[in-house]
Parts: sequence; structure tokens; C-alpha cells
Amino acid sequence: MSETPVSVDPADWVCPLPLRETRRVLLGHGGGGVLSEELIENLFLPAFGGAAGPSRDSAVLHTGTGRIALTTDSYVVQPLFFPGGNIGDLAVNGTINDLACSGAQPIGLTAGFIIEEGLELDVLGAVAATMGKAAAAAGVPIVTGDTKVVGKGGADQLFVNTAGVGVVPDGVDIGPERARPGDVVIVSGDIGEHGVAIMSVREGIDFGTEVRTDSAPLHRLVAAMLAAAGPAAVHTLRDPTRGGLVASVVEIARAASVGVQLDEAAIPVPETVASACSFLGLDPLQVANEGKLVAFVAPEHAEAVLAAMRAHPDGTAAAVIGRVVEDHPGMAVARTPFGTTRVVERELGEQLPRIC
Amino acid sequence: MSETPVSVDPADWVCPLPLRETRRVLLGHGGGGVLSEELIENLFLPAFGGAAGPSRDSAVLHTGTGRIALTTDSYVVQPLFFPGGNIGDLAVNGTINDLACSGAQPIGLTAGFIIEEGLELDVLGAVAATMGKAAAAAGVPIVTGDTKVVGKGGADQLFVNTAGVGVVPDGVDIGPERARPGDVVIVSGDIGEHGVAIMSVREGIDFGTEVRTDSAPLHRLVAAMLAAAGPAAVHTLRDPTRGGLVASVVEIARAASVGVQLDEAAIPVPETVASACSFLGLDPLQVANEGKLVAFVAPEHAEAVLAAMRAHPDGTAAAVIGRVVEDHPGMAVARTPFGTTRVVERELGEQLPRIC
Repeated sequence: MSETPVSVDPADWVCPLPLRETRRVLLGHGGGGVLSEELIENLFLPAFGGAAGPSRDSAVLHTGTGRIALTTDSYVVQPLFFPGGNIGDLAVNGTINDLACSGAQPIGLTAGFIIEEGLELDVLGAVAATMGKAAAAAGVPIVTGDTKVVGKGGADQLFVNTAGVGVVPDGVDIGPERARPGDVVIVSGDIGEHGVAIMSVREGIDFGTEVRTDSAPLHRLVAAMLAAAGPAAVHTLRDPTRGGLVASVVEIARAASVGVQLDEAAIPVPETVASACSFLGLDPLQVANEGKLVAFVAPEHAEAVLAAMRAHPDGTAAAVIGRVVEDHPGMAVARTPFGTTRVVERELGEQLPRIC
Repeated sequence: MSETPVSVDPADWVCPLPLRETRRVLLGHGGGGVLSEELIENLFLPAFGGAAGPSRDSAVLHTGTGRIALTTDSYVVQPLFFPGGNIGDLAVNGTINDLACSGAQPIGLTAGFIIEEGLELDVLGAVAATMGKAAAAAGVPIVTGDTKVVGKGGADQLFVNTAGVGVVPDGVDIGPERARPGDVVIVSGDIGEHGVAIMSVREGIDFGTEVRTDSAPLHRLVAAMLAAAGPAAVHTLRDPTRGGLVASVVEIARAASVGVQLDEAAIPVPETVASACSFLGLDPLQVANEGKLVAFVAPEHAEAVLAAMRAHPDGTAAAVIGRVVEDHPGMAVARTPFGTTRVVERELGEQLPRIC
């Protein structure tokens, strides 16, 4: 046993975060925006001894005989059940998608539950059954788990953590820092549905047509994309969850030190999502998705990759939405439908807390 | 996108749990005892499509070129800081130990944080810094993470999930179902310290001498054990956390359908732990440990394994505490210091909630 304890006392810890008015955790620190990035770069990465390199959706580890991808996500969505899904399939598909966006084929998931005492067993059972069905539908087994229960009031119903492992095929090297000028930016389908589905049920708002979560596993779509044009054709993949399409595109622009030009008119936003966002004062480009990805593809392969996506059930509405440029590195701009240009920037915190 | 949603509604879920007075989650469902087992076997395993096989500390996955172990644990310990450690090193060492008890050498950890809005950044920073130091001390990097923040009152300060991946060396096949009659049962050192450390600070009780958590990573000890007598010599390993030594031994007896005979007088219980347990009305054999393991070793190799443990800094107080027998399969009995014999059985729920 170690005689030199590693435990650090709060009184001895020196806060490296940029000066804020409060020395407390804000809701926005979990929002996937600027505050989240500050927390990761200034608190977690120094603590864990990592450099502030490009943040990939998964880490890639060498096992000695191959490469595996490893990822984790906790889910705190409220309400637990919403149109088209619940916290269970969200947790399964979300972690599969983080692996897929590293180009990995998922081979196993973990399931960790933190449960508030008194939760109805029917609720827990329905979530677990949904997770099992989602895992079976994706062909990725849940292989191990953990359950903790905290007293009444110690948690809000149910939190689910899923971690996942995938195998990275030879030749695949996908990451945000690999985007290159000339790359074609493709989104796999309609955006904004998940966030609007949550908001509609949370706020009790009826938008006429029900908007359902788009939660879906994307590893098969990614496999089809890589098969269509070879593993080197796809430079970057990201699933635009918290912070939406904007957060993904800006993070990639910054990681690769390139500019991104989006064509707003080309971005597929369903009419129901657009009107709901207009009503709620939200930008659909900043609303979370749970079954979409954005791909940065070498221009000579873009046509083949787009065709493969459209031929796949998870990418029928795929569309080219922009291009990588040498101008304004680290920044994304959008050409509006009116022909003007605007800078797109992430939120400081989050539009919608507890969206996933 | 799938046209047949996988989401299961609570109203449609049929509860397969044994009849209890309440259809709600109880604190004891997270306690690592009989209720926990019921929840896993009757709710999670059917939901996830798994058979109720032996519950290993990690799942073993085949990558195509080798075997990896995968595990997850959430930590909800209260208070966050306690003598000798905090939730951070507990989360790092605990997941390393789950991998080690599958015979795997850990190669990477994930860190998932669920944070209550308003938590002092100094507290989060001290926990993260402790995790980094613990990971560095163990030589196992934290490679990826996730942060969620929930509103004030939505969680109790801070929950930490760690998942981990390890490589399983060729020839290693360690699991609870592999215990065999004749096996020698060895514990790696003093038991009961972690649970008593938590209780002493939680209850504000002064036992004279401070009892500190035993939190420590055990993968190097396991490597030394496997090197001492070959990978086939060690049949079963388990770290006796929630539910203590009793829960581990009973679970192994049941998984392998063997009997276990413990010699209570041989079990190393520090005087401070014994007196604290006596005061609190606890059985030290049921108190959680976070830096100990119990090993079931083929008799012809027991001496070599014990010597290797005692020669290792994490196993200096290792002791033979019992033996596997053909009698009373699925049951553990203890010979008391008075020469009598008693059946040792797990708690229904838990002695100490939120101990890890």
C-alpha cells in the first residue's frame, strides 16, 4: 500500500480556470459550449496529465495487437421519457455514436446506473428493457454494469452512464484535427429533432405535428461511408449532440485550424423543427441531435461518400452543407438564405439544460 | 433511421422481480447484497439479453486479435473527502481493481462526472487532481471523459463514473465460477478499513486512532501473483468492496457451486477496525474494502502465491483465511475463534449506504 497518499485537499488546489464571477460549477459547465471547454482544458486535462489536444469523441488505445476506441457518456436527460425514446436508447445510441465518430466498430457497452431511492421499478425496468432492445438493434451487447442507489432527494430519478469499446480498423484515422481546406462538409440528415422533442414535452408545448427524437446508432452508416471510398477519404466525423451542429463545426475548425463555410439554405431543418425553434427562440443549428453525424470528406471522394450515405437507411437525407477553407482559421461562417454572411459561434453555456 | 422505435413504456413493462412489499427501488438495491443480485438477475440481465451467469468484475471481450476486459463503476460516496482519500482516488483505484480481479492489466480509464450546480470548483478540482495523481501512481492513464451538470438539488454534490479497459494476458482465465474444492483462500491484507474510515467521519465518531481508507490499486500485486506460479494457478480473484469479504466469498461459492470454509481467527482485522465495528454494531467481514483482494488459488501453488503477495508492497499482510470444500455447495461457513461454526450470509440490502 502506498505510504504517500495521493488525495488532494480542496484547500490546496489552485484554480486555473479563467476568472469568472463565481468559483462554483454552473449549469453551463455541462452544456457543451465555451464553459465546458474551459472546464476540460483548465481543470480536467491538467489534473489528468493530458495536453489540451483535439478532443475526440473517443480515445484510441493500442492493445499491443490492435487499436481500440474507448468512450464514456453520462445521461441526465429530463424527462426520462419523451417522444420517440427515453434515456435508455439515448444512452446506448449516444455511446455507439461516439465510437462510430472515431471510425471504430463498437464491440461492447457498459451500463452504470445511479438511482434515486423510491424510483418505480417499472420505470427502471422500461429503461433497461429499452437499452436491451437498442443494444440488440445495434448489434452491440451490454456486457457489464453497475448500480448505485442514493437516498430520496440525492439524485433526480435516474442517471445512466454508458461507456463503450470499439475496434478501429486498419487505415482509419478520423479526428477533428484532420479536417483540411477543400474538404466537403456533409450532414447525414435532418437536424434539431432531439432537442425539440425534449423541449416540447418538457414545456408541454404542442407544435401541431409531434417532433420525435432522432436517436439512432450510426456505426453502420459510418462503415458504409468508409467502405464507399476507403478509410482515408473520411477525415473527420462528429455527432452534433449538445450545442448542435454549430458546436461540432466550430470545435473542428479550431482543432484543425481551418475555416468552415456553411450554406444555411442547404442545411436540412424540418419545418416542424424550424417553427418550434422560432417559437422557443432557439437556433436550430444549436439544438442537439442524437442520430446524426457531420462528416468532413476529401473532395475527390465526397460524391461517393454522399451516395453511400443516401443509399443507407440512416443517411437518406444526407446533404452537402459546406466546405473547409483556408480563410479565417478556427472560425465557422454561414452564408444566410439572404446572401449575407454571419459568424457562427458556440453558446457560452447551453441553450437547453439536461437535453441528454 | 429505424421505423420501429425500441422505446419501452413503463406501463408495458412486466416486473419480473421477486415479490416485495414495494414496487420501488430501495436503498438496498444498491448495496451489493441479496437485493442487488435480484435486481441484476431479474431486471438488468433479462433486459440486456444476458444469461444469469457468474458475475465477473469485468467483462472479457475478444477484439479479433486478443482479449480485453471492460468494467464500469459509479461512485456516490458521502462525504466526498474522508481519512486517507476522496471519491477521486476511490474511483480510479476501484475500476483498476475490477480489471485486476479479471486478471487484466489496465491500459486506460474513462472519467464521467455528474455535478450538482453550485459545487465549489475547488472541490471538483481537488477530486480531479486526486484522480490524476492516482492514475499516474498506478500507471494507468485517464484517456477520455464526460461532464454533465444538473440543477441545484438534482444531485448530491458529485458523482463519478469510471470505466476501464485492460488487456487479458494469454493463459489467464480468472472468474468466480472457477473456484475448485481444495483451493486455498487468501486475503491480501487487513480488512474493514475503508468502511470504518467513511463511517467515522460521517458519524463524527473518534475511535482514538484514525482509521484511513485502504484505497489502493492492485493490478501490480495481481501481476506478481500470476508471475509467481503461472497464470493457471489463480482461479478466482475478487476485491471485497460493498458487502465486504462475506459478499465476495458467498458470491464465489454460489458461482462455482462449492463450499467455502473460513477460519475467522486467521482473518486480519486491525484492532481499530474491530473496536469501531463493535461500537457501530457492524460485522467487519461485511465492511467494504477498497485496496484488498481475496484469491482462490490451486493448493499446489498456494505457498508460492502467498510468498509473492507478502513480498509485494500491496500484500505484506496477506494471509490464508480458508479453503474450498465439496460440502455445502453455494454456502460459506466460518469457524469462529470459539471453535464453533456459523453460516456466513450476505445482507439483504446494505450495512452502510453510499460507502463507495
